[in-house]
Amino acid sequence: MKFEFYNPTHLIFGAGTLSQLGEIAQKHGKKVLIVTGGGSVKRSGVFDRAVASLKSAGVAVAECTDIEPNPRITSVARGADIARKEGCDVVIAIGGGSTMDASKMIAAATLYDGDPWNLIGHGQDNWVIPTRALPIITVPTLAATGSEMNKGAVISNDESKVKSFVQANCLFPKVALVDPELTLTVPKDQTAYGVCDIITHVTEGYFSGIDGTPIQDRFAEGVIISAIEWGQKAVADGSDIEARTQVQWASVVALNGWVQAGTNYAPPVHMIEHALSAHHNITHGAGLAVLNPAYMRFVAKARPDRFAQFARRIFGLSGVDKDDLTLAMAGIDKFEDFLRSIGCPTRLSEFGIDDALFSQYAEDAVLVVHDENGHLPGRPPLSKADIVTVLKSAL
Amino acid sequence: MKFEFYNPTHLIFGAGTLSQLGEIAQKHGKKVLIVTGGGSVKRSGVFDRAVASLKSAGVAVAECTDIEPNPRITSVARGADIARKEGCDVVIAIGGGSTMDASKMIAAATLYDGDPWNLIGHGQDNWVIPTRALPIITVPTLAATGSEMNKGAVISNDESKVKSFVQANCLFPKVALVDPELTLTVPKDQTAYGVCDIITHVTEGYFSGIDGTPIQDRFAEGVIISAIEWGQKAVADGSDIEARTQVQWASVVALNGWVQAGTNYAPPVHMIEHALSAHHNITHGAGLAVLNPAYMRFVAKARPDRFAQFARRIFGLSGVDKDDLTLAMAGIDKFEDFLRSIGCPTRLSEFGIDDALFSQYAEDAVLVVHDENGHLPGRPPLSKADIVTVLKSAL
Repeated sequence: MKFEFYNPTHLIFGAGTLSQLGEIAQKHGKKVLIVTGGGSVKRSGVFDRAVASLKSAGVAVAECTDIEPNPRITSVARGADIARKEGCDVVIAIGGGSTMDASKMIAAATLYDGDPWNLIGHGQDNWVIPTRALPIITVPTLAATGSEMNKGAVISNDESKVKSFVQANCLFPKVALVDPELTLTVPKDQTAYGVCDIITHVTEGYFSGIDGTPIQDRFAEGVIISAIEWGQKAVADGSDIEARTQVQWASVVALNGWVQAGTNYAPPVHMIEHALSAHHNITHGAGLAVLNPAYMRFVAKARPDRFAQFARRIFGLSGVDKDDLTLAMAGIDKFEDFLRSIGCPTRLSEFGIDDALFSQYAEDAVLVVHDENGHLPGRPPLSKADIVTVLKSAL
Repeated sequence: MKFEFYNPTHLIFGAGTLSQLGEIAQKHGKKVLIVTGGGSVKRSGVFDRAVASLKSAGVAVAECTDIEPNPRITSVARGADIARKEGCDVVIAIGGGSTMDASKMIAAATLYDGDPWNLIGHGQDNWVIPTRALPIITVPTLAATGSEMNKGAVISNDESKVKSFVQANCLFPKVALVDPELTLTVPKDQTAYGVCDIITHVTEGYFSGIDGTPIQDRFAEGVIISAIEWGQKAVADGSDIEARTQVQWASVVALNGWVQAGTNYAPPVHMIEHALSAHHNITHGAGLAVLNPAYMRFVAKARPDRFAQFARRIFGLSGVDKDDLTLAMAGIDKFEDFLRSIGCPTRLSEFGIDDALFSQYAEDAVLVVHDENGHLPGRPPLSKADIVTVLKSAL
């Protein structure tokens, strides 16, 4: 193990913490740009409570609404224009992963003179990785992407049909204000897709990481076991605040870098899914539910012992009288059963997606991140042909 | 769960990373104060390698040597004097927990005009918690205290026989440069005491924390299981770099706050041990080995289900046909067996300590941290009489 870890985000976690927003924001600036999505935070009253807290702390407010799912670079540019015009010195994201990712890039684009698409990696020669951004405060209303406490953002370009990402230290939120009460109104299907996103963040590191990381293995297994247990409860009863709390906490820990520290983490399933959802407007977590078991079955053959460990430690399956690969496949079946049990799709056909663009998705998936052979990093790295094979098995 | 988490230390981990020290230090200042202990880092050549790296990066060096085990406030004052006289703008700790803790307080005391003992909590009316410190870089040469990546320091006052602590955000190291190669020369007994320190950081949170923290439970269990497995190997063969690496990593994760986030962590065993080692010059980790099983047997009665979970998940014991308390006690026996197997003492008599000062230790243990009843926080909180009972059972 040889690695670095750094995450300076101040996490404030717990039911009811939204009321602290004004007090927190005033430490970072005088006028905030609140970024929101399609309007659910207004319907739920969360927006009004946030504004009231800000105003009572003497913080002025401007607004950027209507960040779409799979947020577009045009929305980033629009947000940055508002921030500049209104003289905002802080960006507050209130919403899910799309809103948080767009907010991070709005915070960076506000201080950048060029085309904001330059800041996102999309195979260009001169990727301008951001070094400055307005202070960012994240207020997640969905447990899923983990964007609340990390330095990443995923942004789409509707023109070129590319969905890609950037990671930069200036994108770490100053504060992640994580109030599980805000997720109580998330519908059943979105709750399930969020749980799938959380688990995929952890499984793909678990399966693509290096050997010799026993503590990280246990951390990862702990998050997966807990997300399965409490995810089921949150889907079954959305008003269960204890379940919402545990799932929200799982979201934070699944992708703030700590579970993956030192594992040489690679996110191949996310990369393939991004290619898919750039072409089809499907929910990210639902796309992952389809792709992750297909991916697991493909790579299990190269590393059956690792998948056998997954089967044993996550699902308590016994390996007596079974070879590792048989046990591995039984574990993946169990995992797929779980996804189905909470209402996730597990086949591309459920989205009406056929094999017409499989080569294109494979091409797009390796566009930004690839090794010297042009393969998607992972264990093993996937060639474009491998990606097509995975996609075919998910039809 | 309602909590905050913040840890901005930049962790650089891995065998061979010591060579990066100069390059790292020059980002934080021009002249460093290197703080060391009894001389082992000079004998091992680590000091010379550190100085060579610093000099080649154009960083000037001053020295504060001879920080003793259970470091004293007089050494802190001496170090701060040197830092001021030499015009140092960075403090680098190269050593174990004592050296790191003293270095943190030297960094704070250099910028503080009063008596540095004011900065340490010891029951005084006006505890001056530090708000400023020189940048700190930790280079641990022992896997034990976790001080390398947290904001705490434990300091003793030889005059008043008080050993106490402070926690402050300014004490977070800017960088923790953690090179497991530097621990290859640690003798067998100190290696074992370090493993015990690591495990105790986790067990006392695990047993004293709130209910409803399933992810943190798994994190804690993962650290304990791994520290037991790899600790045995590191004690058996000190030259096993893989074992040294895993134990060093366990040290970092056991007390950088992440495993305990949201659990309402209390460290009762550490508090009792501090009282003991303020009066007797015993190694902190060895003191913990004696006190922890005694403490566990005492509090298990109040929370047998938690200890039964420990027995099942850490040692794989089966609870079939056993009540929780029986299973709990069997788990604690196993834990004590493990401590003995790596050469730790488990009785006060092994230090030649009798019951003469038991009331005094109990008094000292609650001096700094106590609840409204004067009890030592934990689950349950311990009265002074409880502490004496625990001590008696460890005779």
